Amino acid sequence: MAKKVCLVLGAGAGIGGTVAKKFAKEGYYACLCRRSDQEGLNILIDDIKTNGGEASGFMLDATEEGSLESLILEIEKDIGEIDVLVYNLGAQSGMKLLNETSLKEFEWGWQMGSFGLFRVAKVLMPIMAKRGSGTFLVTSATAAMRGSKNQHSHATAMGGRRMLCQTLNAEFASQGIHIAHVIVDGMVDAPDTLGKMLGKKLFQELRDTRGKEDGLILPAEVAEAYYYLSQQHRSSWTHEIDIRPYSDNAWWN
Amino acid sequence: MAKKVCLVLGAGAGIGGTVAKKFAKEGYYACLCRRSDQEGLNILIDDIKTNGGEASGFMLDATEEGSLESLILEIEKDIGEIDVLVYNLGAQSGMKLLNETSLKEFEWGWQMGSFGLFRVAKVLMPIMAKRGSGTFLVTSATAAMRGSKNQHSHATAMGGRRMLCQTLNAEFASQGIHIAHVIVDGMVDAPDTLGKMLGKKLFQELRDTRGKEDGLILPAEVAEAYYYLSQQHRSSWTHEIDIRPYSDNAWWN
Amino acid sequence: MAKKVCLVLGAGAGIGGTVAKKFAKEGYYACLCRRSDQEGLNILIDDIKTNGGEASGFMLDATEEGSLESLILEIEKDIGEIDVLVYNLGAQSGMKLLNETSLKEFEWGWQMGSFGLFRVAKVLMPIMAKRGSGTFLVTSATAAMRGSKNQHSHATAMGGRRMLCQTLNAEFASQGIHIAHVIVDGMVDAPDTLGKMLGKKLFQELRDTRGKEDGLILPAEVAEAYYYLSQQHRSSWTHEIDIRPYSDNAWWN
Amino acid sequence: MAKKVCLVLGAGAGIGGTVAKKFAKEGYYACLCRRSDQEGLNILIDDIKTNGGEASGFMLDATEEGSLESLILEIEKDIGEIDVLVYNLGAQSGMKLLNETSLKEFEWGWQMGSFGLFRVAKVLMPIMAKRGSGTFLVTSATAAMRGSKNQHSHATAMGGRRMLCQTLNAEFASQGIHIAHVIVDGMVDAPDTLGKMLGKKLFQELRDTRGKEDGLILPAEVAEAYYYLSQQHRSSWTHEIDIRPYSDNAWWN
Repeated sequence: MAKKVCLVLGAGAGIGGTVAKKFAKEGYYACLCRRSDQEGLNILIDDIKTNGGEASGFMLDATEEGSLESLILEIEKDIGEIDVLVYNLGAQSGMKLLNETSLKEFEWGWQMGSFGLFRVAKVLMPIMAKRGSGTFLVTSATAAMRGSKNQHSHATAMGGRRMLCQTLNAEFASQGIHIAHVIVDGMVDAPDTLGKMLGKKLFQELRDTRGKEDGLILPAEVAEAYYYLSQQHRSSWTHEIDIRPYSDNAWWN
Repeated sequence: MAKKVCLVLGAGAGIGGTVAKKFAKEGYYACLCRRSDQEGLNILIDDIKTNGGEASGFMLDATEEGSLESLILEIEKDIGEIDVLVYNLGAQSGMKLLNETSLKEFEWGWQMGSFGLFRVAKVLMPIMAKRGSGTFLVTSATAAMRGSKNQHSHATAMGGRRMLCQTLNAEFASQGIHIAHVIVDGMVDAPDTLGKMLGKKLFQELRDTRGKEDGLILPAEVAEAYYYLSQQHRSSWTHEIDIRPYSDNAWWN
Repeated sequence: MAKKVCLVLGAGAGIGGTVAKKFAKEGYYACLCRRSDQEGLNILIDDIKTNGGEASGFMLDATEEGSLESLILEIEKDIGEIDVLVYNLGAQSGMKLLNETSLKEFEWGWQMGSFGLFRVAKVLMPIMAKRGSGTFLVTSATAAMRGSKNQHSHATAMGGRRMLCQTLNAEFASQGIHIAHVIVDGMVDAPDTLGKMLGKKLFQELRDTRGKEDGLILPAEVAEAYYYLSQQHRSSWTHEIDIRPYSDNAWWN
Repeated sequence: MAKKVCLVLGAGAGIGGTVAKKFAKEGYYACLCRRSDQEGLNILIDDIKTNGGEASGFMLDATEEGSLESLILEIEKDIGEIDVLVYNLGAQSGMKLLNETSLKEFEWGWQMGSFGLFRVAKVLMPIMAKRGSGTFLVTSATAAMRGSKNQHSHATAMGGRRMLCQTLNAEFASQGIHIAHVIVDGMVDAPDTLGKMLGKKLFQELRDTRGKEDGLILPAEVAEAYYYLSQQHRSSWTHEIDIRPYSDNAWWN
């Protein structure tokens, strides 16, 4: 029998790639999808295969019309049933005041924040509903819970994402689809996102200080959370969970 | 001295038009803007003038590039300083399950729900900030607080709107701009929205039953709330307020 | 016909006393109740009478068994129908870490935070329900919304208070009783609470700096909010509202 | 080396007892504490021992002064270090309107809802903080999130509990103590709580219908959640999580 597929949208060297590895290790066929850096993607795939797992990589621009939809149908046809969908596309475009935030950027935030998830749901949820099972794990952020002054685009995008997770849950949970909204409420030890934002030197310093004391969220630990959520019995599902380092204040404090 | 302007975006025969009347009655120059029904707009304008107020009407498609921006600059130039901006554009497209909700509709929800507000803020907030004062009154809905199963587009739009109100508040409150997010958590006695959704006959029945017992939110009462909010002293501003009939359960119940 | 009564529990020289003055000015018979400082109470009463209003003062320990209950029945019998109840008893006992917070203090927090409100509701809500109308205005705090590290007693008390307001609203709104939970999310310019906490000198300095720039919540403005809420038409009631100075971050930021 | 202790307060034949079993199976010394039913307690202890685990049982009235405090010190002295504290004391006293809810009952709700947790924290958190590690797993309920009309006592109690979890987290997370607030948002398949509330016959019917289709939360699955939470790496802690059957609406819907 074919393996079940875990498709990770936004599979860089942070949460996405690490979640893919975890699911591959646990017996899933991992499909990794990202927009750029073919080499980085190959490294992740090779790593999974070296460890005895199965995986395929896909390069794709999620904002392109029909792109996510085709990918899903292709995987369902050629590789296997997508049992777990990890929506890990970020919508963060940096800390910017209103006059620094362009219309284009705001629209991109929406594309990544909620439109992409909506498009994926439109295609995949009916398929999962027909099977009576499936899991959507949606990475989210502090910005989904409260709006800070330099997060106009990001918070709007994430606030929409959170509500969309709720509407999808409201329609599809009873049909067997588990949707979880994961609030990543802290800095993640992720070279491809935080690392690129800060630059190599600053990121290394952060790892050497805060990171040394477990003050950065470890992608491998987030992957444990995602895997745990995917295995919850349907009598006892979690819809929303927050994750932060012990040393950080919660978003409400 | 020229009157202060209150610009209402989405000025139909419900909350929008009634709020415009209220501000006109209190001495503001009311600018009413809507997408369709020139005749309905004229009736509102005439009504205001008959009652001794000043008002102008504008027909405009808010989703058209540059439309809201031009309107604001035109009013600032030709009529007067916009002191109060009422963002009353709805993003409700009906109760629809996921497969009934089109990509186009979802995008429209975003256009009305948050992109329009963002565009207006981009143009008007710097002007208000320069003056050190101004008010944004943003009509919102139950769907901003929780996602129901047939509200995929609306809840995503409104969840984004709510977070955007928070980010704008976080950046601009200290610069003297009061932003209020008003959660209209119940059915409104509004011919142009609820009335059109239900059809003439059903709407009349609703008014004759539920409405007779004050079970429909009255636009005139909402207008009282908007006016009250606009007059709050800056030592004691409200950012979020909910409004519902006494006979309704709150959204969380 | 006898005047309608507004009973303020916790009527010091801050929100409570100022709300009482406002309602007296608007034609209510004001009943002011506090635990200590008979002289301060007399000053408030005299002030109201000098301005043409009617008022009576009551000294009472709210934690004493039966005290609040007797007061309510006495006023209903001797003065008039209590139309508005302002529950303004604070439960703040200062910024204290866990080891600084005693069991006694924690219990006191509960007594003031929610038990007192429960007792008042037990006696007064059935009376109001029989009349089909009445208003409960409940002063609340940031601590009702999120728990900070030195607020163990206060946040527990206020978190309970908020939920109690919701349960009371859920049972009694449809019977004509308007319950509003008012989140005072900032420092109030109140000699009897903040003033005593800081001491005379520090409090004056705060008024001369932050206060000069409208950075302290003015009791008179809060009183406007309370009066506005009490006059809302039952088609359009507000259950929850936040109040903070323009210059403060919201509790979620 | 002595085993680490997991102390469960409120260890009946539902979540409490099942969580104790899970931790015992994973190598903890389980301490089970409950108020009544010595026989039921013995059965749980025997079951754990039969399966190769270690456990002790304690009968105790949590509302008695000093009771929880003595128990904790006794266990720390005689059995071992309490690494995990499960606060599973319920505060539900049934669905009652305001006039059906007594002062005594309301006070009991507070005793169980938050005062007990506060007392436990006062004694145990300093001990855990000195060790730099420890976990508090706090069972909570829908009533912590919203107040329903027949939950005056319960919601007040649970709203307080939730805020207390936040204040404890705010003070102690950075000292190595993980506090998790678990929102059990549905009916639990628990003979000692739901079973007693419904009576034997109705409970069996519920199990035969809803339960057969995984519509009741299974204590064993909740135990998985608790164990997972207790093992989270401190870089990636969860403070709040919700649990409900796939077939139920979320509390906000």
